[in-house]
Amino acid sequence: MAQSQVAIIGTGLIGASIGLNLMARKERNYVVVGADRDRGAARTAKKLGALDKEVGSIQEAVEGAGLVILAVPVMGARRILQDAARYVQQGTVVTDTCSTKAEIMRWADEFLPEGVHFVGGHPMAGKEKSGPEAAAIDLFRETTWAMTPSPRADQGAVQVVQGLIESVGANPLYIDPAEHDQYAAAISHVPLLISVALFRMARDSRAWDDLALLAGPGFKDLTRLASGDPTMARDIVTTNREAIIHWLRRFRDELDTVAQAVEVGAQPVNDLLASTQLDRDAFILDPPQRRRIEKMTAPSAQDAIGHMFVGGMYDRLKQMTTANGQAGSPQAKGSDRELRRKLGIEDDEGG
Amino acid sequence: MAQSQVAIIGTGLIGASIGLNLMARKERNYVVVGADRDRGAARTAKKLGALDKEVGSIQEAVEGAGLVILAVPVMGARRILQDAARYVQQGTVVTDTCSTKAEIMRWADEFLPEGVHFVGGHPMAGKEKSGPEAAAIDLFRETTWAMTPSPRADQGAVQVVQGLIESVGANPLYIDPAEHDQYAAAISHVPLLISVALFRMARDSRAWDDLALLAGPGFKDLTRLASGDPTMARDIVTTNREAIIHWLRRFRDELDTVAQAVEVGAQPVNDLLASTQLDRDAFILDPPQRRRIEKMTAPSAQDAIGHMFVGGMYDRLKQMTTANGQAGSPQAKGSDRELRRKLGIEDDEGG
Repeated sequence: MAQSQVAIIGTGLIGASIGLNLMARKERNYVVVGADRDRGAARTAKKLGALDKEVGSIQEAVEGAGLVILAVPVMGARRILQDAARYVQQGTVVTDTCSTKAEIMRWADEFLPEGVHFVGGHPMAGKEKSGPEAAAIDLFRETTWAMTPSPRADQGAVQVVQGLIESVGANPLYIDPAEHDQYAAAISHVPLLISVALFRMARDSRAWDDLALLAGPGFKDLTRLASGDPTMARDIVTTNREAIIHWLRRFRDELDTVAQAVEVGAQPVNDLLASTQLDRDAFILDPPQRRRIEKMTAPSAQDAIGHMFVGGMYDRLKQMTTANGQAGSPQAKGSDRELRRKLGIEDDEGG
Repeated sequence: MAQSQVAIIGTGLIGASIGLNLMARKERNYVVVGADRDRGAARTAKKLGALDKEVGSIQEAVEGAGLVILAVPVMGARRILQDAARYVQQGTVVTDTCSTKAEIMRWADEFLPEGVHFVGGHPMAGKEKSGPEAAAIDLFRETTWAMTPSPRADQGAVQVVQGLIESVGANPLYIDPAEHDQYAAAISHVPLLISVALFRMARDSRAWDDLALLAGPGFKDLTRLASGDPTMARDIVTTNREAIIHWLRRFRDELDTVAQAVEVGAQPVNDLLASTQLDRDAFILDPPQRRRIEKMTAPSAQDAIGHMFVGGMYDRLKQMTTANGQAGSPQAKGSDRELRRKLGIEDDEGG
């Protein structure tokens, strides 16, 4: 094999956007091969320049690949991991872009053979539209990309994935899978459900025709997530139900507080909104970038990405002694109990 | 007086964006004069090219003006209407950009002298940032701008305001003030409160530092309205409390439906989201533009805007016979009872 092969399984918005980035590098010693259950999507991705080649099976994509990227809804990733396990070779790095991380880490551990390195990933990026037609080379720029390396993944594999993330312009964030899922429920999954509820409230009203005429950019922004892929949402709920229910309850409590302020009078509303405006402006003007960089403890990804993208990832991987220690998740913060305490779950449920 | 004077009271985001549009017209026979309680804001607006001149009092802005635009939070507009009533001359057209319309229509009727024409307005546009620095000439392009002409406003006045709206690229929508406020509660005011509740939920969590790191474009979009002006929000609640409470209850019912789907299983979530995706895509891809144009029954605004912006609005207004009939609100749909029926309020409250 003269060239490394990068396999992208799932060539929708995320997969094709990664492909556009991989294809854009001038000096590269790898081919980008894509597969999608919907073969038309893979053909479109190829036409748009996101792939060198599209193939019709997991086997063709994965066999001989040095890096496999699963860019599908999480339940689909489960099936693909089972299938790919039969074809994936020793030393291959496997990553994903799924919205939840705890389950997929378990499945990777269960299905992938020893010597195959799984490094979970979740780009905190998206768009109103899905499918390869919506792909964009700058989709990930300046966004956070969560990383959850398996304890069985070696340092070289972690560096390859970190290099991939940095090469698309995103900021890698090492995080424990259980923590990721709790936080993603608050910051991503519950917002999606809120977006759906708000759109349904307006759409199911008898006044919808008139409401729609008045809808401005605020309503459109708040309901954008309701145009997302329902399969992805279904899989998120399947794999993160408990955390979603917890944060939905939290949200309803906050909404009750706001509703009480509205009932009581204008001044409480003013006070609530004034402090929220300050807090949100601080969040937007002073994003938590700095702390993120301080927290990154993995060694420089530059070597890894150089090897990966310019030459000989296989050589690099072969030189690595397999580190069976905890190569990744430097931020893993211990027990479930600790996480629950931090999230205030114990407070809610008495104790 | 050689030139008409257009007065903009309140030179924040909305006022200054209107000013930028008025100033950009090549052939104009009017001067744009601005005033703001915060004189620094008016000076900034002038510096940015949104005004010909900034003045320090309502009197200076309004005296001799043919068109007065109130671009302030609604309770501020009440005080300004009282104040301006002493200086405004016969034939002047007064409009506003406030978020609620029923109260301001009452105040205009109460405070403005006979022969002064009030045509309410509400641009369904906005931005994360407020203040003249955030002003943009394209802020209103392709947005809806609600119009609520007073029964005492003559056709000429209605046409001047419609001409102003069309000249900034917005789509005028004639609507009854009470209907406007009900619909705006659903499509604008409740989304604002949802945005605040979601941001507070995350911000007040002990896990905020980690949540903030993971926050992607979805969370930022959904909480954008929480960065809005708290005074505006306070005044919205003061003047539209009942409608807001009604739609907040509606939203909580929808959220309960979504939460139940999450509890029950993945398939109900999938079904709910699949139908919502279809509905929202239809709303975005086939916006209710066409119906809006069909509904517009006012005569062409081209004549009015020609007179207003190229020459002699005063001549035009003087030629008009004062139409004391119902010049505006061609869509006014009758009684409160009818509106309540349409909004399903009776259903909720038994009957």
